[in-house]
Amino acid sequence: MVKSTAVSPQAVQDAARDLFASQGYRGTSMKDIAQVLAVSAPSLYNHVPSKQDLLYGIMNVAMDRALAALAVALEGVADLADQLRRATEVTVLDFLENPAEVTVCNTEIRSLDEPYRQAIIDKRDAYAGRLLTIVEQGCSAGLFDVVEPRVASFAILEMGNNAKAWFDPRGTYSAQDVAALYGDFALRIVGHRGPGVGQGRA
Amino acid sequence: MVKSTAVSPQAVQDAARDLFASQGYRGTSMKDIAQVLAVSAPSLYNHVPSKQDLLYGIMNVAMDRALAALAVALEGVADLADQLRRATEVTVLDFLENPAEVTVCNTEIRSLDEPYRQAIIDKRDAYAGRLLTIVEQGCSAGLFDVVEPRVASFAILEMGNNAKAWFDPRGTYSAQDVAALYGDFALRIVGHRGPGVGQGRA
Repeated sequence: MVKSTAVSPQAVQDAARDLFASQGYRGTSMKDIAQVLAVSAPSLYNHVPSKQDLLYGIMNVAMDRALAALAVALEGVADLADQLRRATEVTVLDFLENPAEVTVCNTEIRSLDEPYRQAIIDKRDAYAGRLLTIVEQGCSAGLFDVVEPRVASFAILEMGNNAKAWFDPRGTYSAQDVAALYGDFALRIVGHRGPGVGQGRA
Repeated sequence: MVKSTAVSPQAVQDAARDLFASQGYRGTSMKDIAQVLAVSAPSLYNHVPSKQDLLYGIMNVAMDRALAALAVALEGVADLADQLRRATEVTVLDFLENPAEVTVCNTEIRSLDEPYRQAIIDKRDAYAGRLLTIVEQGCSAGLFDVVEPRVASFAILEMGNNAKAWFDPRGTYSAQDVAALYGDFALRIVGHRGPGVGQGRA
């Protein structure tokens, strides 16, 4: 006999996250999740009302963590080039440190029902909006030079998205080193000609 | 009664591609594909030996098309900055013109069995390798200035990956305009200081 009481809510989230990342939301049943946790599928419903709630919970936690990390990274930073560098670095670090969650967030918005879907899109847009504001303000201040701030901010957000696929934590570069390289790319994309651009920290 | 003979191999591929993109490979059954095509599931096996073969076929066609387009874009282009611009543009155009296929290629390598998996990874690596070679040659020639050509080439490949999510073909910019913006970003990322960089074509 298995005891459902032995399973923590975090363990349920972690198991679901890994399965959603490796085989997709629709390709994962509550039974699959229960199997990983060695509990019965019905007992899983003591922990979470539905698979849909599990998916939303995973993405919501991921978005809140990313938004909070971005806010911390930008706190008290006045210089717009520094803001862009820090925002880019913290974005890449989130990709590198939470690969399974990022995969779920990247691929499974398609699987969210309303109102969950819109709630996650709003948070994603809020994140992208902070980056866009930095690029726009940098352009207005004459520090950056881009034709289309919106496209530039999307490129910056996206360029490190797949770094988790090739990043090796045991390799020459730390996650922070890799993030710093992307921070340089961001400043280059917006045409910033500041000291140290292109030198990385690596 | 439905007639399986009315279904073309291309229609089967297209239906499978759209379902894999919208609900994942594992979340899609042969029955789902048959339903879209209005044929019986067993009759689908007249057209394709397995769901796995369908997935491989979709990804293989996509990779061959991308590799061929890249080869055409680079044919006879001697200047390395032009090579990088063209390679970036053709990459972004492929993302914009084949959104469902690109989603499948991005997300479903996880679902390929061997030897299919390695065959697709080899083609993906060949594509990335061509870009890396351009960046490395540009650095050797003193035209580009990057700390880590490998990371720069990944960033360039990746930065337009999600453009399909926001690109509106009825908007102000054509796909070629958007691709040209990314071409500029690529030249900026590698630190190229050529004429016209940052001006786009838009």
